[in-house]
Amino acid sequence: MNTENFDLSGYLKERRTLLEESLNRIILQFDQQRELVQAMRHSLMAGGKRLRPVLGMAAAEAAGGDFRYTLPAACAIEMVHTYSLIHDDLPAMDNDDLRRGVPTCHRAFSEATAILAGDALLTHAFTILSKPGKIISEPGGKPLFELYPDKRVLLELVALISDAAGVNGMVEGQMMDMLAEGGVSSSTSSATSNLNCPSDQMECLRKLHHLKTGRMIVASVQAGALSVGADSATVTLLSTYAEKIGLAFQVVDDILNVEGDASVMGKAAGSDHLNAKLTFPALLGLDESKKFAARLIEDAIEPLFSAVFEKRTLPLISIAQYILKRDR
Amino acid sequence: MNTENFDLSGYLKERRTLLEESLNRIILQFDQQRELVQAMRHSLMAGGKRLRPVLGMAAAEAAGGDFRYTLPAACAIEMVHTYSLIHDDLPAMDNDDLRRGVPTCHRAFSEATAILAGDALLTHAFTILSKPGKIISEPGGKPLFELYPDKRVLLELVALISDAAGVNGMVEGQMMDMLAEGGVSSSTSSATSNLNCPSDQMECLRKLHHLKTGRMIVASVQAGALSVGADSATVTLLSTYAEKIGLAFQVVDDILNVEGDASVMGKAAGSDHLNAKLTFPALLGLDESKKFAARLIEDAIEPLFSAVFEKRTLPLISIAQYILKRDR
Repeated sequence: MNTENFDLSGYLKERRTLLEESLNRIILQFDQQRELVQAMRHSLMAGGKRLRPVLGMAAAEAAGGDFRYTLPAACAIEMVHTYSLIHDDLPAMDNDDLRRGVPTCHRAFSEATAILAGDALLTHAFTILSKPGKIISEPGGKPLFELYPDKRVLLELVALISDAAGVNGMVEGQMMDMLAEGGVSSSTSSATSNLNCPSDQMECLRKLHHLKTGRMIVASVQAGALSVGADSATVTLLSTYAEKIGLAFQVVDDILNVEGDASVMGKAAGSDHLNAKLTFPALLGLDESKKFAARLIEDAIEPLFSAVFEKRTLPLISIAQYILKRDR
Repeated sequence: MNTENFDLSGYLKERRTLLEESLNRIILQFDQQRELVQAMRHSLMAGGKRLRPVLGMAAAEAAGGDFRYTLPAACAIEMVHTYSLIHDDLPAMDNDDLRRGVPTCHRAFSEATAILAGDALLTHAFTILSKPGKIISEPGGKPLFELYPDKRVLLELVALISDAAGVNGMVEGQMMDMLAEGGVSSSTSSATSNLNCPSDQMECLRKLHHLKTGRMIVASVQAGALSVGADSATVTLLSTYAEKIGLAFQVVDDILNVEGDASVMGKAAGSDHLNAKLTFPALLGLDESKKFAARLIEDAIEPLFSAVFEKRTLPLISIAQYILKRDR
């Protein structure tokens, strides 16, 4: 299977457009004059890679299904992802001023409004999963998902996404990150001292990323597969793919941060900057980190070349390869 | 039907105990050393009236069902309620130091931890609704709800609770409250100027309370009734009850605030304090507010005296009467 002729950029654009049309229809259901709705729209419609929803759609295709059936889960997941960015950007957390090239929600509106916009996006994700037929419709107004899908599947999606996003998933990942960076406890002396895993820093870093981003990336792929009724063997195989590319994404992020620093600030890898934060280059060195990321991607895509998939896995393979070679 | 011999205090205590045992089992599933879990437990197990879950159980009984079947919804609703208190108490919102007699979550932990604990409670509410069998079990470890209930009902509960809690419900109510108090926009000159309802202050105040507290109280009663398969006529009747007692609760709150002020601070009703915030006594006067609350309670309970209920509505009637005569 040759991925060189696959038009990934065209594929991503088409899928993102479909997602954003659906998200837009969701937001347009509300009075656009409302402060809360404006804040939700500001963050939800600010662009971004839409990696999670696109992975969900690509997983549905790999499983031989119609990717449009993943739209409720894809929209819900993007709303959960956006809420997490809004809350992570707050002054009490990372205190960021810019996100996706525009002012963060609390800068564009207010801190209170940003907290509430995040809460509303998270809550509405579950309204969408429980009532997809009423929410997602074709441009003409005809519901796309009147019969969509089995209610047991929808309830499974609620369980899957809430579990990945919550106390044993993304929220705990952010909590670990805050503790690791000393943003919460002022008595923090080293990056791992608050993390209950002092013995193995590598294990600790992997756990942090698994919780903070990995679980939602895995859930995205699983949600896509479940939405089209994939069998459990396919779900398991795609989950492993997602786990590996999720981790690779973080390793590449860390590498880009170091190399970005090196070119911009004239600092070499291994500088004091690296010691301030637990990262893969800090633990493994830059070269080993690059090899680690390459191996993860290789392991992720290897099973997807199987003939049983009849080239339906081309998008997933291309996305994985893109993660490795991206430069920003 | 005579409510005088009904032991409301014993009833409330018994139902609260059952709820708190379930909430405790939920929290004990997690590592108690975790910062996030400690913050969730701090706020979730700090007592409180547990009005919403008890109303849900009482509604199930009124509909002739086993109130234990409401426990998943009751726990989920109390977790959603607790998250809303944690976020409302934050410095960017009401900036409160005490809640239910103990330090607020952000005072006991940190602002970041409080935001995340609220997020985790909200998210976990939906895990409970989607997987009640794995979460709520008897003290011996046997799942109480292995067969509980129809998955269609669970999905309906997700829709009901997320809708009442979200962008068209509780979160918007808090947004309106922030705008009304001038906590968000610094250009606010009067209590209603930001609320898009300048023409009728009474309508505005009712809408605020309907969204901020009313919708979740109605959802609590509906969730209780749905959990035991109540027919739609009963659900409608109980919803009207809930809407009226929810509003009465807020009117009584406003009255108690004024009378508390008068005795403690030596201020009379109608003082400048009243003008600063939109309240029922400020709009109607104290006497008319008391009559309004009494009429709401009367209207709420009148249909519940019907013989078809065979005294099963005694708890709901007694709770309504208690709301009117409470003194704190």
